[in-house]
Amino acid sequence: MDRLRRLFATHPHPASDAGDEAFALVTAASECAAVCTACADACLQEEDASSLRACIRQNLDCADICAVVGRLIARPGRQDPATLRTQLDACAAACRACAEECQQHAGKMEHCAVCAEACRACAEACERMNGAIVAA
Amino acid sequence: MDRLRRLFATHPHPASDAGDEAFALVTAASECAAVCTACADACLQEEDASSLRACIRQNLDCADICAVVGRLIARPGRQDPATLRTQLDACAAACRACAEECQQHAGKMEHCAVCAEACRACAEACERMNGAIVAA
Amino acid sequence: MDRLRRLFATHPHPASDAGDEAFALVTAASECAAVCTACADACLQEEDASSLRACIRQNLDCADICAVVGRLIARPGRQDPATLRTQLDACAAACRACAEECQQHAGKMEHCAVCAEACRACAEACERMNGAIVAA
Amino acid sequence: MDRLRRLFATHPHPASDAGDEAFALVTAASECAAVCTACADACLQEEDASSLRACIRQNLDCADICAVVGRLIARPGRQDPATLRTQLDACAAACRACAEECQQHAGKMEHCAVCAEACRACAEACERMNGAIVAA
Repeated sequence: MDRLRRLFATHPHPASDAGDEAFALVTAASECAAVCTACADACLQEEDASSLRACIRQNLDCADICAVVGRLIARPGRQDPATLRTQLDACAAACRACAEECQQHAGKMEHCAVCAEACRACAEACERMNGAIVAA
Repeated sequence: MDRLRRLFATHPHPASDAGDEAFALVTAASECAAVCTACADACLQEEDASSLRACIRQNLDCADICAVVGRLIARPGRQDPATLRTQLDACAAACRACAEECQQHAGKMEHCAVCAEACRACAEACERMNGAIVAA
Repeated sequence: MDRLRRLFATHPHPASDAGDEAFALVTAASECAAVCTACADACLQEEDASSLRACIRQNLDCADICAVVGRLIARPGRQDPATLRTQLDACAAACRACAEECQQHAGKMEHCAVCAEACRACAEACERMNGAIVAA
Repeated sequence: MDRLRRLFATHPHPASDAGDEAFALVTAASECAAVCTACADACLQEEDASSLRACIRQNLDCADICAVVGRLIARPGRQDPATLRTQLDACAAACRACAEECQQHAGKMEHCAVCAEACRACAEACERMNGAIVAA
């Protein structure tokens, strides 16, 4: 994501000075979206896929929500703060719920342990971004 | 979207009995996502595209958020209610903000008038779905 | 999708006169994306979810590809024809593969029968759009 | 994306041994999607946005296509090779077309120079992945 950092640095009119938080969040959300997508696929391939329904579902929802947050935050030019804050809340909630579900399987399946970690990192990045918007 | 209605009717374990609200919302969100995408493209092709920056940006964000809501609600099986409610709030906020922006140009550009209409319809469908989840 | 038709009619500079094919495709792709998403969720909730792995996976891929085609075609203003044609080929291939897989379960599960139908309709809409671009 | 690498390493049944190419492609596609999204936003904020219409449009299409490729490749479990190969062709075509357009503005706008670079890197990752699938 080094090129995204360079791109943010050359944007003509960023709406806020939360560039560091934005870069960290797009990075975390892109990783979390990919990891949740891959974890759902891994769960589906496990012998006992039927017992992982809740995990697969959380993974799919979390991947979708992280992807949309990555897109919104990758547009630094203008923002509707009220929409953005609520969207970040929804993303943090999805990440926390997915982390909690994955954590329950983390002892048996390493992919769920890694996924829980990615979800917690993204939730934190959402919260920091939300703080930066409030302060702006 | 007639096939979606049939698909919902044959789902083995819907998590709630909010099937009507869910169908109405996926339909409204799919339309709003397509209409906002097309309105952004139309604004960009207008002679005076530079004066429509805010509108284009709202259209893009609203399209992205509506698309993710369409996906989440198209999965009736399991849901994390807290995430879902916040996501619906974010979608309603995005739709209201986009409708307000588009309405300002509705006199001059018919595509903005149509888009404002689609956004309001989707915001209402989000709010009805949110009411149905609360009641569940 | 009536509002999308109205929006297309007011677009200032459509790149081609394939508006009817474009409208039909965005409609079919939006439906197919929603139906495939719902079919994956329904399969996952079936007693014997483990035997439906291939179907779930095809559904997820097909939903993703249909969604991106819906977005691209909802932008009538400018297009890179070579990219668009290849993307339509990929969408038709995904829809045909998903229809074939779903058809195998159509006798036992009505949602797979409906999904196969939506996939075939979208594949045909892609092929008609591709013909219209070639002719342009 | 370090966590994605770890997740791929713990997947129970990857369909191929193209894990390195897959990891490289998800990383490149995620970056390209974010960079193209940000470049479209930056172009829109430039004084002379109207002259950048083609660039904005290519950026939006390329971001959408890269995002879908990132999702498909993040699912290592099962794949329809014909669909995947065509989808990778479409992504490479979108990236090459966007790189070419952005390169024309690279002297004046650093964000277009960075974006062209990200697009070329993603096109190459698509081509390498396509080679690995053919070989599989």
